[in-house]
Amino acid sequence: MGVKLGILGLGTVGTGTVQLLQDGAGRHPLLQEIEIYRVGVRSLHKHRAVELSTEVLTTDLEAIVNDPAVDIVVEVMGGLEPARSLILKALNNGKHVVTANKAAIARFGAEIFTAANQAGVYVMLEAAVGGGIPVIQPLKQSLSVNRINAITGIVNGTTNYILTRMQTEGSNFSDVLADAQQLGYAEADPTADVEGLDAADKIAILASLGFDGRINLQDVYCEGIRQVSKTDIAYAEKLGFVIKLLAIAKRNISSFSSSLSVRVHPTLVPKAHPLASINGVYNAILVEGEPIGQVMFFGPGAGAGATASAVSSDILNLVAVLKTKTVDPNLLLACGHQEYCQIAPMAELVTRFYARFLTKDQPGVIGKLGTCFGNYNVSLESIVQTGFQGELAEIVVVTHDVREGNFRQALAEIQSLEAIDSIPSLLRVL
Amino acid sequence: MGVKLGILGLGTVGTGTVQLLQDGAGRHPLLQEIEIYRVGVRSLHKHRAVELSTEVLTTDLEAIVNDPAVDIVVEVMGGLEPARSLILKALNNGKHVVTANKAAIARFGAEIFTAANQAGVYVMLEAAVGGGIPVIQPLKQSLSVNRINAITGIVNGTTNYILTRMQTEGSNFSDVLADAQQLGYAEADPTADVEGLDAADKIAILASLGFDGRINLQDVYCEGIRQVSKTDIAYAEKLGFVIKLLAIAKRNISSFSSSLSVRVHPTLVPKAHPLASINGVYNAILVEGEPIGQVMFFGPGAGAGATASAVSSDILNLVAVLKTKTVDPNLLLACGHQEYCQIAPMAELVTRFYARFLTKDQPGVIGKLGTCFGNYNVSLESIVQTGFQGELAEIVVVTHDVREGNFRQALAEIQSLEAIDSIPSLLRVL
Ligand SMILES: NC(=O)c1ccc[n+]([C@@H]2O[C@H](COP(=O)([O-])OP(=O)(O)OC[C@H]3O[C@@H](n4cnc5c(N)ncnc54)[C@H](OP(=O)(O)O)[C@@H]3O)[C@@H](O)[C@H]2O)c1
Ligand SMILES: NC(=O)c1ccc[n+]([C@@H]2O[C@H](COP(=O)([O-])OP(=O)(O)OC[C@H]3O[C@@H](n4cnc5c(N)ncnc54)[C@H](OP(=O)(O)O)[C@@H]3O)[C@@H](O)[C@H]2O)c1
Repeated sequence: MGVKLGILGLGTVGTGTVQLLQDGAGRHPLLQEIEIYRVGVRSLHKHRAVELSTEVLTTDLEAIVNDPAVDIVVEVMGGLEPARSLILKALNNGKHVVTANKAAIARFGAEIFTAANQAGVYVMLEAAVGGGIPVIQPLKQSLSVNRINAITGIVNGTTNYILTRMQTEGSNFSDVLADAQQLGYAEADPTADVEGLDAADKIAILASLGFDGRINLQDVYCEGIRQVSKTDIAYAEKLGFVIKLLAIAKRNISSFSSSLSVRVHPTLVPKAHPLASINGVYNAILVEGEPIGQVMFFGPGAGAGATASAVSSDILNLVAVLKTKTVDPNLLLACGHQEYCQIAPMAELVTRFYARFLTKDQPGVIGKLGTCFGNYNVSLESIVQTGFQGELAEIVVVTHDVREGNFRQALAEIQSLEAIDSIPSLLRVL
Repeated sequence: MGVKLGILGLGTVGTGTVQLLQDGAGRHPLLQEIEIYRVGVRSLHKHRAVELSTEVLTTDLEAIVNDPAVDIVVEVMGGLEPARSLILKALNNGKHVVTANKAAIARFGAEIFTAANQAGVYVMLEAAVGGGIPVIQPLKQSLSVNRINAITGIVNGTTNYILTRMQTEGSNFSDVLADAQQLGYAEADPTADVEGLDAADKIAILASLGFDGRINLQDVYCEGIRQVSKTDIAYAEKLGFVIKLLAIAKRNISSFSSSLSVRVHPTLVPKAHPLASINGVYNAILVEGEPIGQVMFFGPGAGAGATASAVSSDILNLVAVLKTKTVDPNLLLACGHQEYCQIAPMAELVTRFYARFLTKDQPGVIGKLGTCFGNYNVSLESIVQTGFQGELAEIVVVTHDVREGNFRQALAEIQSLEAIDSIPSLLRVL
């Protein structure tokens, strides 16, 4: 007898998944065991790109997660509620769950995994990070023999698309955003992408897997790309960098405690770095561990087909479990950690900075800046007067590694200097 | 009670693996269940970088694979024999096997997997391709819901190191090779790397997994990098390409049969292609499938630590199986295919070509070349007289997609032209 799926949602991802499952030839033979038993949607009157018999399509999503015949619930409806409640009900009813919902997992992961552990079932979430890219499963399995030191990702396709176009065309953020919205690469409300919130959800999930602990989403520092200007992209280019929105989870090796830094912000990435050449809507996740060194996973971070691949591979894993009616030890390689990771405040981060200053064109202003930085042990790699903007001289500074707290103190002092007009940009350097 | 390993070999990979297993803190907790029970070597008198008690180290490898106490045999000794016989004995004795030995798997895979299937045990080989990069497991699991169209890899670190240095320094092959040998990046006998044989072993293994069939190693076309000149690297650069040794397995969509092309050769790769920026000793494997699109796996293709990570993750998977004493359905997702893939002869390959000609400086020589190509339906993208070498004019040609057989016929006709001195290079274009 087949394994019965109850799919919640038939939008981009749901449709892609149904298409893949309905067209099994040339794919893994176990997919043939799957029956698309119920699909829950909001409206029965929409045109659907897939054919489903009338008893399959329903608007009663509660009935799906409560139906004893359903073996696996596939949550591809998105949003926080009712997705959270439906997932929890499915788990409590002893059903395995596959989800693509990073927002729900990043916020309710603790609750959801606790429920899954209690019910002895699995929550699979390959599609929640990096779209089609297999990264969750490798983190749980192949890479788990390593001590993970850092996970650094370009995990939001919209912002990477915008930054790539700003870079190649020399355009402004707002112009590219408007165009991206017209082309369908950015949503009408781009907040979650542009402010880095979507990337924050994803790095919270990756950090939890890589560092074996729960992550409190409020602890994730998050800065979007609105303030990235074409001026800074051009200066970065000259200095040998490209600007990327990076999501970073890193073990603080400098401190004695075993704290992490988990953060999302635009970052100057050296051109030779593997993440520097990830362009357009593509995503990539770089994992650094001991003894493996650096490995990177690259691919389409979104889209119906790619995401359907990830959702279906999770389903396939569960079908294999259900067909043999055993607890799958490989899935168990996922950690049922209960502890929260300790996340250090940003002031304790040690990083390099790039900053751009507008100053009154006075003699000795570079010297004054240097003195302020020196007062707080901020060591500079370069300080260059790059030109003028009207009456004001423009100065670009790149620091060596520095404690963020110290750097901020120096900036506060600099801001109070009479010679300083403003500090239009401040970016971290990888 | 612990899971007992019998490790065959304590060289680079064996030592790295023992070090990882002996230092388990901060890694997957299941690693604690492992006991390094026996390690087989050639000499008991060598200095070893790891401490093992005297009853563990032995020169009697037969005894290890025949010892009923051994649960998993880890073959990291390399070579064809006695590795093949020892693996087969271990399997016949009901032991799972982990191996890093691409040479043995590429040649004896059919025999080895048949023995494993008969005994109901697993052969794990993550380390055989791409060193530490998780690529075997993703191909067997996450990506198996896709129809794979192509697998394209930079899977040999030595040749990629040499080509990268030739590119950045403008140096000759032989100079860089000599230097690479001194620095330990190339072996004293570099044949297997430089002639593409190691890459051929690896693409045979990847093709077998991606296309669900056995691969006859003799069917894999193989061309090394000895004939790649700094002149061609420079021309390629001008045309927007870098030259990489690619290992390619591809479904021939043009033909009616479902044949594959499986091949290793130096290739002009467009600079914007994801594989173009893989430099030095790094490896990368690009998988193209439907519906996922392109995904790429990047990382260290060799080295003690990286390879130990892959070997240990295979061991971990098997420990999970042994601890629950169930057949692991996820490992079963590997295909026990028995059929051989049909591999098309190279004459049927459809590809672009780059060729460089030395011709007598006669009027109309470009026209004559063009006519010959036209006679065999070879359509040209560009044909440029690039300069002179002594008395001879140098002409560089790039074709559109063409059947290799047609191109070769055109070349044969061209070679017989009075105006043609020689054809110093002929390379395929991705
Ligand atoms: N799109 C991507 O490329 C992508 C990539 C990775 C992850 N994801 C994640 O995958 C999930 C789904 O994304 P999507 O792009 O497929 O979304 P979508 O196109 O908006 O589709 C949502 C589907 O869920 C149904 N739905 C939503 N709320 C419902 C409710 N309260 N009751 C009944 N049905 C409801 C909708 O029904 P109607 O059709 O009747 O409106 C629709 O079929 C999200 O969590 C997203 O973050 C998406
Ligand atoms: N090195 C890498 O980075 C790498 C990466 C991926 C895969 N691999 C694969 O991993 C395997 C091992 O490579 P390696 O670099 O670790 O090799 P290695 O350094 O040459 O070590 C070989 C080990 O096997 C032992 N050995 C070899 N033949 C033996 C025999 N007939 N009887 C007893 N012991 C024997 C040697 O014993 P003694 O120590 O006593 O001489 C030595 O400990 C090969 O298949 C290789 O292709 C290597």
